[in-house]
Amino acid sequence: MCEDVKFNNDICSSSLTIEKDTDKDQVSKIPKNVDLKFGEIMSPHMLIVEWTEKKGWSAPKIQRYQDLKISPISSCLHYGITCFEGMKCYKTTSDKTLRLFRPDCNIARLKKSMKRLGMPGTDFEGKQLLKCIKELIRLDKDWVPYGEGYSLYIRPNVIANHQCLGLATPNSLLLYVITSPVGPYYPSGFKPIRLKSETKYVRAWTGGTGDVKVGGNYANTIKAAHIATKDGYDQVLWLFGKEKVITEVGAMNIFFVIKNSSTNRKEIITPSLGRGDVLPGVTRRSVIEITQKWGDIDVHEIDLSINDVSIASKSGRLLEAFATGTAAVITPISCIEYGGLNMNIPATGEVTRKLFQSLVDIQYGNILHEWSVTID
Amino acid sequence: MCEDVKFNNDICSSSLTIEKDTDKDQVSKIPKNVDLKFGEIMSPHMLIVEWTEKKGWSAPKIQRYQDLKISPISSCLHYGITCFEGMKCYKTTSDKTLRLFRPDCNIARLKKSMKRLGMPGTDFEGKQLLKCIKELIRLDKDWVPYGEGYSLYIRPNVIANHQCLGLATPNSLLLYVITSPVGPYYPSGFKPIRLKSETKYVRAWTGGTGDVKVGGNYANTIKAAHIATKDGYDQVLWLFGKEKVITEVGAMNIFFVIKNSSTNRKEIITPSLGRGDVLPGVTRRSVIEITQKWGDIDVHEIDLSINDVSIASKSGRLLEAFATGTAAVITPISCIEYGGLNMNIPATGEVTRKLFQSLVDIQYGNILHEWSVTID
Repeated sequence: MCEDVKFNNDICSSSLTIEKDTDKDQVSKIPKNVDLKFGEIMSPHMLIVEWTEKKGWSAPKIQRYQDLKISPISSCLHYGITCFEGMKCYKTTSDKTLRLFRPDCNIARLKKSMKRLGMPGTDFEGKQLLKCIKELIRLDKDWVPYGEGYSLYIRPNVIANHQCLGLATPNSLLLYVITSPVGPYYPSGFKPIRLKSETKYVRAWTGGTGDVKVGGNYANTIKAAHIATKDGYDQVLWLFGKEKVITEVGAMNIFFVIKNSSTNRKEIITPSLGRGDVLPGVTRRSVIEITQKWGDIDVHEIDLSINDVSIASKSGRLLEAFATGTAAVITPISCIEYGGLNMNIPATGEVTRKLFQSLVDIQYGNILHEWSVTID
Repeated sequence: MCEDVKFNNDICSSSLTIEKDTDKDQVSKIPKNVDLKFGEIMSPHMLIVEWTEKKGWSAPKIQRYQDLKISPISSCLHYGITCFEGMKCYKTTSDKTLRLFRPDCNIARLKKSMKRLGMPGTDFEGKQLLKCIKELIRLDKDWVPYGEGYSLYIRPNVIANHQCLGLATPNSLLLYVITSPVGPYYPSGFKPIRLKSETKYVRAWTGGTGDVKVGGNYANTIKAAHIATKDGYDQVLWLFGKEKVITEVGAMNIFFVIKNSSTNRKEIITPSLGRGDVLPGVTRRSVIEITQKWGDIDVHEIDLSINDVSIASKSGRLLEAFATGTAAVITPISCIEYGGLNMNIPATGEVTRKLFQSLVDIQYGNILHEWSVTID
């Protein structure tokens, strides 16, 4: 127990209090799988932990999902001092037990994002927070939908709550976790997406915040996404620098399956993290690690320009392309527009399908794997 | 009147409703000038206007300053979709009438920031919003402090209030305006600041959002500011690219007074806006326009690298340097650190003082000028 400690560096799961929602109508309003849209329906409870300069992390609390009361001068509302994570809880296909996918990776990245924003309170170890998140999911376990493609989306969010208009290291934070039952991104199987290369707006840059998951990375993408949609494409392909190096797609990482012109062997290529403008995605990392275990296809984290991809496409060596992220897991790419021309890509290819199935098998416990953490 | 219109493209000042704070203790708690710290004490009332996809801009409302109720999934809290302005209301030295400084510039920039973030609702004309802001100030007129250096800081803020975890063009916005009585940034006259050049973190980038006033531009500066302070400096000097071009200082624009090595004449130099990574500050623009009217000093909007400034400093041609912004108006710079070496700059120089006085004379109505707009 941590109650007697004057300043808590860590979140203390043993101090967790639970105030259940007593509105039975609300709690039993579990949506049907067919009604699930991404991120619109929220589960009945939320986890909330405050950090203050005086006391560090307060006792975590699970309470009814409810509006937050925020001061009009709170620094999250003016200076975009927010960072978040996206993770999922899956129901095991065989016995409906609950599983998280690599939650340690998400919590480690949340801390990294907080540090990049100069937030205090980053000394927490992560295990305690994970315990509290598990407790939240246990309480709303009936809200975890069952079936392949269905899951409970979990959104930890940290907002600065410094109450002064002067820009400063925040003296107060609010960490909260909300959950939302979600269905498959593409209910009728894979739906390949078409990308429009963005040449005016830039998502991230070296020395910026592109390698962490902070609010400002997303605010600056809405306009470009709107233009892409208006032009008949699904997502933006983000390029960087004079060489038009490919970095991300929408809010996902990108992979190419290309036949090497020298060896004639299939290779998987994804942008490197070296410049610091690409998010180190958990699904990205998992795809790399899975293919490394396969052993029959080389994986390279190297930079490709849009021109490199165009040359590979013209010579018939661009075999597949796909995007990765927590929400859609793996999304095949069927077309990339650049300079007014459409590059068509075969979709959905063998590697894309095999990787998707490998991830799904781990996530739903079809095969046992250390990445899949059960909630007892 | 606009009540009968189904969708309001503009904010309608004639529909403004006022709910006065009836708590007399609160309303009469006007702070003494000596107790004013920047952005900590807020005036009793706030202006609030909602935008929704269905109705456009709702009837504006002045109400008691109070916490906002915000949904935990509101997109401002996750994706940093926020933009704001900083402006000031001054009490005329001679007769205490109220004056705003170039409010049209701030409102135009607010719209530009909203557009860059892909926010809807940007068809409002600005005049109506300004009328509402004037009404807010009139109501709390006793909170505008009197005396040179004292003013009412006005903070219009626009936050996206889209209630879905999916990143999207927001279907709901909240525009609110709060005000705060503030004192001079440097109560005992000019206090020159010392800058630390930042070589790891980069504030903004071409194709990013550096030329608008959005939340994400500020969140990513806190860490560097913290390091600079720890190292004994007051603010960060932001550099760009391999050439280490000077862009901004802290959250202010920067100016140099340099003696031209060919003509031997004083010149004022400030970074150009061409790359799109420098905020077009209202004080910046005013300084340029004032010196252009003087006619005896050339003003150039061109890029200087830190090396250029170092060479000018070593040869004794770097005469003055100062930062500009709404909060501190003009702040002299006495030192720039780069690569572990300190470049000392004479402060506070003649041009710095003369520009400061010119601005203050307009702001406090000591001289009549079209930039100064009275509130009747």
